[in-house]
Amino acid sequence: MADTTKGAGSPPAGPKLAILAGGGTLPARIANAVRGQGREVFIVAFDGHTDPETVAGVPHVWSRFGAAGTILRRLHEEGVGEVVLAGPVKRPSFTELMPDWRTARFLARVGTRALGDDGLLRAVVREVEDDGFRVVGLHDLLKELLTVAGPVGRLAPDADAERDIARAVEVARALGALDVGQGAVVQQGIVLAVEAIEGTDAMLARCAALARPGTGGVLVKVKKPKQDRRIDLPTMGVTTVEKAAAAGLRGIAIEAGGSLLVDRTAVAEAADRLGLFVVGIEIPQ
Amino acid sequence: MADTTKGAGSPPAGPKLAILAGGGTLPARIANAVRGQGREVFIVAFDGHTDPETVAGVPHVWSRFGAAGTILRRLHEEGVGEVVLAGPVKRPSFTELMPDWRTARFLARVGTRALGDDGLLRAVVREVEDDGFRVVGLHDLLKELLTVAGPVGRLAPDADAERDIARAVEVARALGALDVGQGAVVQQGIVLAVEAIEGTDAMLARCAALARPGTGGVLVKVKKPKQDRRIDLPTMGVTTVEKAAAAGLRGIAIEAGGSLLVDRTAVAEAADRLGLFVVGIEIPQ
Repeated sequence: MADTTKGAGSPPAGPKLAILAGGGTLPARIANAVRGQGREVFIVAFDGHTDPETVAGVPHVWSRFGAAGTILRRLHEEGVGEVVLAGPVKRPSFTELMPDWRTARFLARVGTRALGDDGLLRAVVREVEDDGFRVVGLHDLLKELLTVAGPVGRLAPDADAERDIARAVEVARALGALDVGQGAVVQQGIVLAVEAIEGTDAMLARCAALARPGTGGVLVKVKKPKQDRRIDLPTMGVTTVEKAAAAGLRGIAIEAGGSLLVDRTAVAEAADRLGLFVVGIEIPQ
Repeated sequence: MADTTKGAGSPPAGPKLAILAGGGTLPARIANAVRGQGREVFIVAFDGHTDPETVAGVPHVWSRFGAAGTILRRLHEEGVGEVVLAGPVKRPSFTELMPDWRTARFLARVGTRALGDDGLLRAVVREVEDDGFRVVGLHDLLKELLTVAGPVGRLAPDADAERDIARAVEVARALGALDVGQGAVVQQGIVLAVEAIEGTDAMLARCAALARPGTGGVLVKVKKPKQDRRIDLPTMGVTTVEKAAAAGLRGIAIEAGGSLLVDRTAVAEAADRLGLFVVGIEIPQ
């Protein structure tokens, strides 16, 4: 990954990147990868959301969500050029959102009704761009994160699984068109669960009790039809495979070019070990 | 309710009615009401699904779901003219479905993939009609079951609640169009939960943990856009009000003319006692 054309004193490989870091290991992966490309990185970590290990050895600031004014001023001071949103964020509490004047002005404009769904993140992106920063997607920084078409491990879906996948795609896309969720679970033609704000893990957790005997179901995750790919692309990693297996599913299908696969090698290994298929599927847009 | 024009020896108020009885109190309510109209009733009770109190003092047979041939033969022997499906049925286990030859022929035709969703019930209705019975809806027998427009108790939705209702209607209708579910919960513009096979009670049970502080959410139940009103209309009663209150919701909206309200007086009393609105809403078809 490192750009070997860069030596000491070479121009940087790109403008300084600020990572607005949610939970999980994705922010640290991005930070490492981008620094490996010779770019400077600055992490904005959020109290109670970002894993403390994420910022180890990387320039950073800890902040509250409500401190938009302070954060944006700091990004200017740091000479940041590009900004990326990385990792999931649990819905912030009211205390975390306690707004500074900049945040208050922002909330007054977008309305607190938008808080918690994609509307909020889209508004955040606009706000950051209005301040002169360029907002990029994770897949712009690390192309290999983007899911490609085809099986990830040894197994592939059979004709029955393909039918369940098609049904789940239909349902998940319809929900996504309404900006509700990105996932659905279908078993033997029956929709066991659809995802709203609870998230994929919670949806999977209830599937074991809803499943019927016989062939297991499939989890499908697709991006919303009009989704900005810089925001909250469906993401899966080893944990998703493990939770799908625990729910009795036989496989997972995720949108090729429209979702992020964190650590493809580890996902393939987990899928093979647990006997699930994981497959990237093309979705006509 | 009793038809006072009928005396001993009068012609019956209608053909003998068979009630295919699911769980809850609805089958017994229907049986009492229809007998009060002077009609003969025969109940088909299903082992493990029908409340034993339902059949007390009413001609009946206990059966398995898989015994379609036996059931239909018995309905002919009893001189049944009309059939109604009443009360919810949990997904039958494989043992309960162990088919007689008639059921096997039926399953071979509709395909076991249809088991568990509306497709199965539609196929059951066709099968019963092909045998010469007329299948009617609960609202054909007991008109006051059908939800009418307007508040059921003292409270009515305010403008904020109306917005959440509109959003939930949009989501529930889209899911219904895909034959997935009939319900959604929205709070402050955010879709907290959408219903698939888990049912309304299970959906409500997860909402308390997903809700944000502040104004509570609303539950909306609507029929599927192309739903046969003789099958599985959305139904609510006192239990739904209680579970919605426990989930922190502020109200419930159900489709006027497209849902069943079991015991309107008791629902109004529960809604007033618990401080929720319950409202029948018109949905443009």
